[in-house]
Amino acid sequence: MKQLLKEIRHNPLLWSLALIPVLFACHRLKPESHTLLWVLSVFAIVPLAGLLSLATESVAARTGDAAGGLLTATLGNLAELVIALAALRAGQYMLVKATIAGAIVTNTLFVLGVSFLLGGLKHHVQEYNRVNARFQVGLLFLATVALLIPSAVGEADSAAGAAFAQKLSVALAVLLLAAYGMGMWFSLKTHRELFASAASGESSEALLPIGLALGTLAGVTLLVALVSEVFVDSVQQAAVAFGMTPVFVGFIVVSLVGGAAEMGSAFSGARKNRLDLSVGIALGSASQIALFVAPVLVLLSHVLGPAEMDLQFWPGAVVMMLIATMAASLVTSSGRSAWFLGVFVLMVYLIFAMTLYVLPPRVHEIPRLHAL
Amino acid sequence: MKQLLKEIRHNPLLWSLALIPVLFACHRLKPESHTLLWVLSVFAIVPLAGLLSLATESVAARTGDAAGGLLTATLGNLAELVIALAALRAGQYMLVKATIAGAIVTNTLFVLGVSFLLGGLKHHVQEYNRVNARFQVGLLFLATVALLIPSAVGEADSAAGAAFAQKLSVALAVLLLAAYGMGMWFSLKTHRELFASAASGESSEALLPIGLALGTLAGVTLLVALVSEVFVDSVQQAAVAFGMTPVFVGFIVVSLVGGAAEMGSAFSGARKNRLDLSVGIALGSASQIALFVAPVLVLLSHVLGPAEMDLQFWPGAVVMMLIATMAASLVTSSGRSAWFLGVFVLMVYLIFAMTLYVLPPRVHEIPRLHAL
Amino acid sequence: MKQLLKEIRHNPLLWSLALIPVLFACHRLKPESHTLLWVLSVFAIVPLAGLLSLATESVAARTGDAAGGLLTATLGNLAELVIALAALRAGQYMLVKATIAGAIVTNTLFVLGVSFLLGGLKHHVQEYNRVNARFQVGLLFLATVALLIPSAVGEADSAAGAAFAQKLSVALAVLLLAAYGMGMWFSLKTHRELFASAASGESSEALLPIGLALGTLAGVTLLVALVSEVFVDSVQQAAVAFGMTPVFVGFIVVSLVGGAAEMGSAFSGARKNRLDLSVGIALGSASQIALFVAPVLVLLSHVLGPAEMDLQFWPGAVVMMLIATMAASLVTSSGRSAWFLGVFVLMVYLIFAMTLYVLPPRVHEIPRLHAL
Repeated sequence: MKQLLKEIRHNPLLWSLALIPVLFACHRLKPESHTLLWVLSVFAIVPLAGLLSLATESVAARTGDAAGGLLTATLGNLAELVIALAALRAGQYMLVKATIAGAIVTNTLFVLGVSFLLGGLKHHVQEYNRVNARFQVGLLFLATVALLIPSAVGEADSAAGAAFAQKLSVALAVLLLAAYGMGMWFSLKTHRELFASAASGESSEALLPIGLALGTLAGVTLLVALVSEVFVDSVQQAAVAFGMTPVFVGFIVVSLVGGAAEMGSAFSGARKNRLDLSVGIALGSASQIALFVAPVLVLLSHVLGPAEMDLQFWPGAVVMMLIATMAASLVTSSGRSAWFLGVFVLMVYLIFAMTLYVLPPRVHEIPRLHAL
Repeated sequence: MKQLLKEIRHNPLLWSLALIPVLFACHRLKPESHTLLWVLSVFAIVPLAGLLSLATESVAARTGDAAGGLLTATLGNLAELVIALAALRAGQYMLVKATIAGAIVTNTLFVLGVSFLLGGLKHHVQEYNRVNARFQVGLLFLATVALLIPSAVGEADSAAGAAFAQKLSVALAVLLLAAYGMGMWFSLKTHRELFASAASGESSEALLPIGLALGTLAGVTLLVALVSEVFVDSVQQAAVAFGMTPVFVGFIVVSLVGGAAEMGSAFSGARKNRLDLSVGIALGSASQIALFVAPVLVLLSHVLGPAEMDLQFWPGAVVMMLIATMAASLVTSSGRSAWFLGVFVLMVYLIFAMTLYVLPPRVHEIPRLHAL
Repeated sequence: MKQLLKEIRHNPLLWSLALIPVLFACHRLKPESHTLLWVLSVFAIVPLAGLLSLATESVAARTGDAAGGLLTATLGNLAELVIALAALRAGQYMLVKATIAGAIVTNTLFVLGVSFLLGGLKHHVQEYNRVNARFQVGLLFLATVALLIPSAVGEADSAAGAAFAQKLSVALAVLLLAAYGMGMWFSLKTHRELFASAASGESSEALLPIGLALGTLAGVTLLVALVSEVFVDSVQQAAVAFGMTPVFVGFIVVSLVGGAAEMGSAFSGARKNRLDLSVGIALGSASQIALFVAPVLVLLSHVLGPAEMDLQFWPGAVVMMLIATMAASLVTSSGRSAWFLGVFVLMVYLIFAMTLYVLPPRVHEIPRLHAL
């Protein structure tokens, strides 16, 4: 505990942790001042991300980078799962779907791209275990196929089509969960040795003891979930004030801020030449959302929700997921990275972001936070 | 001959060969009892598959695994060509196309996936010659492009579009045949050494002499063709009795049973750590159907048929072929296999099968065996 | 100078340089005899291509194959840029777009394919630096995504859609130019050593001195630009006389003849086992057109043109670019080549060419030179 406080005292960024109680107070007292809440929540998430990164490194130093990356991704996605469940019970299926698609694309392209870029600016060429990268890309490909095939083969318009989508979604959700479970068993159990880290990298000097690190991980994840909820509540009105379209907010802004915590860990791993940690967080988080979070939400919507959520996504979102998967496949095939690979992946993300930013609001019939 | 009989006596599975005369007798006497004929023909194909697998191994032990795989695939596809010709002369173009697309997808995903899975459950990591795998994937990609481009570039609806598709199909058929011929020349003649087997594997103990093995191959292939014909005749009514949609039967059931013989060889090769044999059968059979069987049928339809068959496939089928090719490309890029790769490929196949299974019959305007 | 004349005297092909003044005279005196002008211009481009190939080799011998390939590609594309600017100022956006798409596909498939084939017919297996090939394929992928996403996500029909496309095109053009600039900086500066040639190959015996070589490069490029302009002027009427559809002319014929000069260098490099030169010209030229020429034209159209050119391409053209990129990715993943890889890539090109050749003129609403 003393070490944690010492770390906080030495790291000025962490001082802004003080913003968190301010944020919660504001949320209670002035729930309608959305822009203030939005700005406060963005600034509150940054120090939490820093703290989470420190705790993750402390744990990863003991578990290895691949498992450490999975742990970070899982904690980050648990927070997203909690938020999505709240939206689900309110019947906001469109928001949930937009968040899922946005999180997959953001992790695959933005987190991976910035990691490659930041790592590449410090190190000339970086090596990482490409078996893990290809494994995660394969899982993403599987999820994309599961989202693509029903709309490519069937017809969504008719009433028969809707019933078909509903029935198929449950079966596909079970199948994706089974694939994810077997994939974890494969990578953590039967063929663990194939997923060992390629490069050693520097180990952090200031490690937390394992118990404190795990406690910090859990506590900070909870705080991130709470702050994120304020953020999601306020983002729509704030976005209008800043002149952003709802679809841009749903796909890009929510995903970027919602994933800030994992990103901190991924980027600091890349700087320390531990690219396996970064790749594990980026692609591991994307595949976990696609093969675990989304199917769980579909299945839970049959228990909890006012209506059933299906796996039919907006075609534009499916195309973006497919292209993100192909870009990740191109970039990770060699197991080596340099700064331009980061630029390449980020450019694909920028093309998506720019297109969604200028997309005229009337044209698309999709995820608008209006519908919330 | 004695050795063959001895093998049959020691292998209880082969006793069911006795079902074959029963099947033919029933077909003669009670041609309208479809469900009985269907069940009998499925059970008759299983022992034939076992016998074919034995003969193939005996031949492959002398020719090498790549050539042995090609031989098995060719014999299996000859049977399918014979059946398709019968359907063609009856003007059943939709059935022929459904069978072709289904056979390509089933070989690429199901046969490859089960081979990887069965092999991987026995052996921790298996190696195979990835040059051959990539070569076959390239041929499949070429065929998929030939089926995709006409519909992506032209318009199928108008009368001009139909004439365009007709004219183009003949040219594309000739081009695919030329590509296949040059590919065979490349892999069997000019660059044969690149296609040598990666791993030695166990050789079978009980090999048949080469003459007997070749004779068995030919004879069993003929029997498979005859039994398959009964199967195809009875499958539609039987499917209705079992509650399956026609499109599911055309794509999945016919392909699975029609390819049972090759599958036996592919799976037993994988168990014996001779994955080059399995990959050769799975991908070699798929590329042969796409680049040889389908073009030959198009060209023959101009000589034999009441009308011309073209190469315009149902868009959903083209998407499935494209995804199957991409999945095979992802999975074979390393030349190494473990059990989860098999699960991955099978999952893609399951997504296709599940989607076709729940597809409402009225929604699609495609391969229904009704049209036969 | 003497060496250049000696080279010309020894090389009968170069004698046809004498055709160039004849062509210009005819163009002046009989501007309406299109078929004659077309035939003359095709025959005039061939010797220029030969001369350009000689000069390129002389320069590449000093700069290395990768940089030499880039230089050749740049000079070839400068000529195309000049022609496109003329068309742009005349408001012929459709022609410019058809030429751009056709040049990308032709370089990626035809130039690469013929290089692999010609090289492979002389050498059993050829090696080249696959880092450069994958780098160029990545750039092409990026450009394809930039052309694909706006139409996959937005709607082109409505008025709002048109304004959206216009606004987005400028942003995408800036982004592609930035990606190209950073890519050049990466490959020529920070990570130059990764792009070194894989194989040494034969060096030419008859090298020109560097000054003369550079002068020849510049002079011949200018002549090619002038002759190409006559060619483009006459091609439409000549095409009708030869029975070709306008879309076939725009995509295939103009691209083949317009790129003849670079092709000469690429093919002769392949014969001399300097495949890095060929790959650098083929894929480097394609990516340069996609990420430099096309964006520059979009930006210049806002300064020069009567109206703005956008980056919205005919969907069929985008599909062909995507497939060309995937084919190049499949073929260059190993860094080794044999003759069949050339056949494979050429077959994809032939499928495109055949489809465009038989495409009924009324069916498509695209690049017709009519609109010129």
